[in-house]
Amino acid sequence: MPTISDIALERLDTTDPLRHKRAEFSLPDGVIYLDGNSLGVLPSAVKQRVQKTVEEEWGVSLIRGWNKHEWIDLPITVGNKIARLIGAEAGSVLAADSTSLNVAKAVFAAFSLNPERRVILSDSGNFPTDLYITQSVVAQMGEGYSLKIVAPDEVYDAIDETIAATLITEVDYRTGRKHDMAALTARAHDAGAIAVWDLCHSAGALEIDLTGVGADLAVGCSYKYLNGGPGSPAFIYVAPKHQKQVKPVLTGWMGHEKPFAFDLAYIPAEGIRRMAAGTPPVLALSALDAALDAWADVDMRQVREKSIALSELFIAEVEERCVGLGLELVSPRNAAERGSQISFRCADGYAVMQALIAHGVIGDFRAPDIIRFGFTPLYVGYHDVAKAAETLEMILKTKEWCKPIYRVQEKVT
Amino acid sequence: MPTISDIALERLDTTDPLRHKRAEFSLPDGVIYLDGNSLGVLPSAVKQRVQKTVEEEWGVSLIRGWNKHEWIDLPITVGNKIARLIGAEAGSVLAADSTSLNVAKAVFAAFSLNPERRVILSDSGNFPTDLYITQSVVAQMGEGYSLKIVAPDEVYDAIDETIAATLITEVDYRTGRKHDMAALTARAHDAGAIAVWDLCHSAGALEIDLTGVGADLAVGCSYKYLNGGPGSPAFIYVAPKHQKQVKPVLTGWMGHEKPFAFDLAYIPAEGIRRMAAGTPPVLALSALDAALDAWADVDMRQVREKSIALSELFIAEVEERCVGLGLELVSPRNAAERGSQISFRCADGYAVMQALIAHGVIGDFRAPDIIRFGFTPLYVGYHDVAKAAETLEMILKTKEWCKPIYRVQEKVT
Repeated sequence: MPTISDIALERLDTTDPLRHKRAEFSLPDGVIYLDGNSLGVLPSAVKQRVQKTVEEEWGVSLIRGWNKHEWIDLPITVGNKIARLIGAEAGSVLAADSTSLNVAKAVFAAFSLNPERRVILSDSGNFPTDLYITQSVVAQMGEGYSLKIVAPDEVYDAIDETIAATLITEVDYRTGRKHDMAALTARAHDAGAIAVWDLCHSAGALEIDLTGVGADLAVGCSYKYLNGGPGSPAFIYVAPKHQKQVKPVLTGWMGHEKPFAFDLAYIPAEGIRRMAAGTPPVLALSALDAALDAWADVDMRQVREKSIALSELFIAEVEERCVGLGLELVSPRNAAERGSQISFRCADGYAVMQALIAHGVIGDFRAPDIIRFGFTPLYVGYHDVAKAAETLEMILKTKEWCKPIYRVQEKVT
Repeated sequence: MPTISDIALERLDTTDPLRHKRAEFSLPDGVIYLDGNSLGVLPSAVKQRVQKTVEEEWGVSLIRGWNKHEWIDLPITVGNKIARLIGAEAGSVLAADSTSLNVAKAVFAAFSLNPERRVILSDSGNFPTDLYITQSVVAQMGEGYSLKIVAPDEVYDAIDETIAATLITEVDYRTGRKHDMAALTARAHDAGAIAVWDLCHSAGALEIDLTGVGADLAVGCSYKYLNGGPGSPAFIYVAPKHQKQVKPVLTGWMGHEKPFAFDLAYIPAEGIRRMAAGTPPVLALSALDAALDAWADVDMRQVREKSIALSELFIAEVEERCVGLGLELVSPRNAAERGSQISFRCADGYAVMQALIAHGVIGDFRAPDIIRFGFTPLYVGYHDVAKAAETLEMILKTKEWCKPIYRVQEKVT
């Protein structure tokens, strides 16, 4: 049984202050897309922008495009658009490279800001790539350097005078559990540590105030809630107070003070540009630049409020409809402790998700037994959420998911 | 006076075995483009491919695109297309990240293959980003590690038993001077060193035989002769014999044996995939994938032969027409010692190049006094080259370049 009437749903959708944003996205027909936390939907403006970049800018201006179309500035102009969404100052965010590589840059940078210490603290809920690359960075730093991994709820107490930097992903990619960024940053600073934040599952979903919490460094991706497209460029933030001190390690020519002087010696650029390495990926940055324009008139508080309302509705509907069907909420029940996704443990999660997808509700699966649903307030409405819960109920009650076609594991989910 | 008759030019163009390739590129009207060594021309097939990737793949398939459109395999499928053009085995090239970051990966990898040694040898003609990032890598490796930079013609003799690896760019970005890849690789091996090659100014321009010369590692870019678009993904090569031994340092999740198992511990993938770090940039890789299709029916020997013929014609025409006008050939006069560009020293090179561009001949300028002309056999013909020389003569003789509009320095040239 639903927990909400059609009339109430209708009222929620019609009074939604973000309702007009959906028209700016190219949502395929017949799809309820609850996977924008993995790959965001195509903003319609990206189509024209990419075509223009390819045909008019590259095709016609050719090499002159670097100046004429300001390609060379894209890492900064795109970075500034992201900055506004994460509470960062203009000139403090660079759009470049992948999140993994930006984590490497940030960890090296943290050691340069805190050279007397040798331990990076992270938690077992962090996305694995952060841990993989940090493990390599500490090994590269030399004798005595290490990555310490504790359980997510042990991070606060584990921050002590040995820690050079914390490297924490604000929102857990599986459960949606959210760390308290202000409290952990303050604790890190009290202990003399640098606070590095991974915002992959936060940027575009939560109200983030990097300046307000005093974060030192941050990284994040743009292909989830920011809708930059598959594998779109990531970003790195360096607090203005650290920009003169921070020592880049992946020192490519685009981070040089004067890249076109072609000097043999590296001198880091002023400001955030020193975190740049190679030639900027113009097609990808153009797509992301256009995608970010969808945020120009958006108030992140409204995004967060709607994200919570959608999530609460989904939990209520699923728990009411699917009682006794083997689902267990693994996301925190308290909305203040969650990001913008809801995850359930589900023994046959892979097959259940495949069946859901076949019935037009796209979420995703994370091994071994988590089904995830992301809520992207710019293009998901209350009717979508109710319909998704109804479909999940149908699939579990009819055992639709038992069909063999839903059980073939693919490489990526 | 021209050195060649119109009839002879006509015959060269009509008998050119690569003549049909030009129709596959979107060359703007009225432009003679001699800067494909900096940013290649748009292959027409890229337009449709990018539109398809954005609108049909991302827009409709959304997260399912990773499997359905094999996005996840793009670094390898694109890498294999590049492999064919550089004499590399299938499965030995990965398309990923920027050249700068791939240089860092390659240098770290070289140390892992030759752990007893601590010196990287390069030369002062190398592109600066290679030197900048290698300087950081050796500093990161610790005490006693260093980057030794000698003059280009001193490289051979400088390879001794202290050298862990040579890091040499085959073709000098300013002069076009070409190193002898076979000789230097053999010399490196004789001395127990690893040979790392940067093919940025070679791939798509020269006959390269990585397998034949026994190169150990290589990197290169795809936005020059390979026409992948501004800032398109770079590539990295690891010789098959080293793929099991090579230890990646920038260890992101895409280089993991099982990225979607989300294990906390990093285990490198088999083969070239271990050199991957973050999520692949799908839009950029799709564009590059389509761009590389232009090479499917191309014989690199014909490319090299035409490149030499175009270059020889250009030198002859310029030297005949511009005698006494202050130009000095800085590229080697012997075609076997050059890549696919011709550079002249020219005291007012910046203004001269701006005037040339205004008159439809696009080359570029490299500080302090080099004007460069690149020859891309797939879309440049003999008439183009003759016309470019004629235009240069006119600009120098009329002192067209002295006009103030040509003297305003822009950020990027």
